[in-house]
Amino acid sequence: MSNGAMHQPTPAPEMWNFAPDEALLGLSALSVRSVLGSIKAGMDPSDGRPVIPLGHGDPSAFPCFRTAPEAVEAVSAALHSGMHNCYPTGVGLEPARRSIARHLSLDLPYELSPDDVYLTSGCCQAIEIVCSVLAGRPGAASSNILLPRPGYLFYEARAAFNGMEARYFHLLPDSDWEADLDAVEALADRNTVAMVLVNPGNPCGNVYTYDHLAKVAETARKLGIFVIADEVYAHLTFGKKRFVPMGVFGSVAPVLTLGSISKRWVVPGWRLGWIVTNDPHGVFRRTKLVESIKSYLDISCDPATFVQGAIPELLEKTKQEFFDNTVDILRQTADICWEKLKGISGITCPSKPEGSMFVMVKLDFSCLQDIKDDMDFCCKLAKEEAVLVLPGCAVGYKNWVRITFAIGPSSLEDGLDRLKSFCSRHSETKK
Amino acid sequence: MSNGAMHQPTPAPEMWNFAPDEALLGLSALSVRSVLGSIKAGMDPSDGRPVIPLGHGDPSAFPCFRTAPEAVEAVSAALHSGMHNCYPTGVGLEPARRSIARHLSLDLPYELSPDDVYLTSGCCQAIEIVCSVLAGRPGAASSNILLPRPGYLFYEARAAFNGMEARYFHLLPDSDWEADLDAVEALADRNTVAMVLVNPGNPCGNVYTYDHLAKVAETARKLGIFVIADEVYAHLTFGKKRFVPMGVFGSVAPVLTLGSISKRWVVPGWRLGWIVTNDPHGVFRRTKLVESIKSYLDISCDPATFVQGAIPELLEKTKQEFFDNTVDILRQTADICWEKLKGISGITCPSKPEGSMFVMVKLDFSCLQDIKDDMDFCCKLAKEEAVLVLPGCAVGYKNWVRITFAIGPSSLEDGLDRLKSFCSRHSETKK
Repeated sequence: MSNGAMHQPTPAPEMWNFAPDEALLGLSALSVRSVLGSIKAGMDPSDGRPVIPLGHGDPSAFPCFRTAPEAVEAVSAALHSGMHNCYPTGVGLEPARRSIARHLSLDLPYELSPDDVYLTSGCCQAIEIVCSVLAGRPGAASSNILLPRPGYLFYEARAAFNGMEARYFHLLPDSDWEADLDAVEALADRNTVAMVLVNPGNPCGNVYTYDHLAKVAETARKLGIFVIADEVYAHLTFGKKRFVPMGVFGSVAPVLTLGSISKRWVVPGWRLGWIVTNDPHGVFRRTKLVESIKSYLDISCDPATFVQGAIPELLEKTKQEFFDNTVDILRQTADICWEKLKGISGITCPSKPEGSMFVMVKLDFSCLQDIKDDMDFCCKLAKEEAVLVLPGCAVGYKNWVRITFAIGPSSLEDGLDRLKSFCSRHSETKK
Repeated sequence: MSNGAMHQPTPAPEMWNFAPDEALLGLSALSVRSVLGSIKAGMDPSDGRPVIPLGHGDPSAFPCFRTAPEAVEAVSAALHSGMHNCYPTGVGLEPARRSIARHLSLDLPYELSPDDVYLTSGCCQAIEIVCSVLAGRPGAASSNILLPRPGYLFYEARAAFNGMEARYFHLLPDSDWEADLDAVEALADRNTVAMVLVNPGNPCGNVYTYDHLAKVAETARKLGIFVIADEVYAHLTFGKKRFVPMGVFGSVAPVLTLGSISKRWVVPGWRLGWIVTNDPHGVFRRTKLVESIKSYLDISCDPATFVQGAIPELLEKTKQEFFDNTVDILRQTADICWEKLKGISGITCPSKPEGSMFVMVKLDFSCLQDIKDDMDFCCKLAKEEAVLVLPGCAVGYKNWVRITFAIGPSSLEDGLDRLKSFCSRHSETKK
């Protein structure tokens, strides 16, 4: 294949009309994987010890968090059937939507319909869809959304990409990370379309009470805003508080519930999530939010058809024993974490985690004298002890760090012992 | 679970701050599935004959287009390994990227690197990413993109969603659907960032010559625009012309090649596609297009990890026999289609299809007296003969229709015979 054109001189970059969007280039910094990537880059390759990863939200690589064999068989059967090689529909396969509706209705005072369920490519795409639909468009008054701090920055990134303003209310560390609802009221205006609440909490490991969720719903109703309930960690609770879905209050304020099989089945790589309209009064239909979601689904990608096809069997056949086992390990590792953290100088932990896979700890700079900030803490910890934790900046909460305890118990103990050495070494320099 | 709040009165829709984006609501009409859906809605349920679907782009449901068993085994093995339950990386798993680079390099005068390959959730997400990255942002001068007419309207929908203007150049039916490059030159200005070319052609069934592609590259270079080469039908050619990838001309003008396993392996439901940078001179890197793609991938969803994990085995182990068989059936059905269409009054077909799964035919309204337009033609055909074809409006080409021949040969013959009855019946009303 010889052609004169192949040997033309290198065209200068300024010859081309494309100019990058600098704002887009900055959004990448908001992703957990990019923050962890930059911390890992500074690690000491000569450290012979195993790396202890306490920064992730994905324990699927650890043998004790291996998914249920029934779930693997459900997907395998759908794949081998040959019935699910085709394009899916925009909203998702009806049997999958029906079984998710039934599954979620078990915890609700009313019955969801399959039409309340929209399948997404993991919870990430659910967030993308919600932000794309809620955002104001060029020309109209820009809408805004209220996000919790600390929180999952993916919301911020997608809101920014869609030109929607993000405003932040704090979660209160001394009140079990409840939302500061006075702040929510102060932040909202006529262009506020929704508030986000994550329960069980990422990154805080908290579980909200029925009463707090009722207050959230009343506040949302008063302000005329929808509630985005991120329940990707639903049912991963191991403390005193039972998980209550926000959808229980759907008749007070309409709730969009986001969920997935990623965490409860420990298969984030299977990329199957959902958006559910918890809205007995039909507000979403009458305000055309439902129609907007459907339109966006018509111009966006879908989860793999055979994974959708596997959902009824996956939901019905996974044994309770599997879920109990996962929760037991999390209870055990949360206990280890809580006990070990109490004995470490330079960090404080406001409350014992009761859900999800995380706990937030505060750095005490009066003690940690030669540490500049949370990012510096995480980089030095990774370099000196081969332990990864997530800096607070990656969850919008400076000078705290997020520790994952969803990892085998002995690795967790090893990691926390190294964290203790690190903190006491850096506290000693002060003396 | 009783709560007074549950029994609050129905809130009025105007109580809520959300207002839908009317432009988004309109985009749904651009999707093939929504257009076909509205045609199907008018069918006669009392017609006892089997429906003949000649409107789709997905033949996976027909036994003669069943995917290769090696492909199913590759995905099954990756699923059962338990190694791919985790989140993938933004750009995709390295072994998958490496094997796609090697696979595509076979047809190129240079070697692609794994870093040239970005995995996407099917070609739809590849289009979403390309449009998101190329679009101008609020505040800057809006960029524009040149799209072929007829063409795949998903580009128009995603460009519109991202606020990027779409401009159209015609494909020339009397010149084997070559791009009207004079029109391309007339349309382009300093804000034109790229032009799209689909080869093998959807919806036209054409295959471009080496010489035409060389001219496209020269034109793009002259205008300072990138080429988006949509090659989702790569290697599905069955006429005299061999498939030449646009990447061959990557040193003349940088080419973003979009592809997937959807068509060649007949598994659109597996949702695995790619964007490849064909750019030996590194223009994409220096203009920060590469960095922009990576940033967008950091804030968007991914194809299932285990499907990514299966790619090396899928590419290496699928037998040539499977590909040959698919192409043989398409050759046979394209022949049937071409011969049968010649005998039908009221429609004309400018050239025999040589690639993809489609042919475009022109409606002759001097003959079809009681048919209003292409949509009316398709609705009446569906209602009277239970045959589905795609109206030209769904590919931006009024008063033509797109016919799919990727269907079992006997069903195809049945469908075309019914089309003939329909056309002669509606031509007769004129006499």
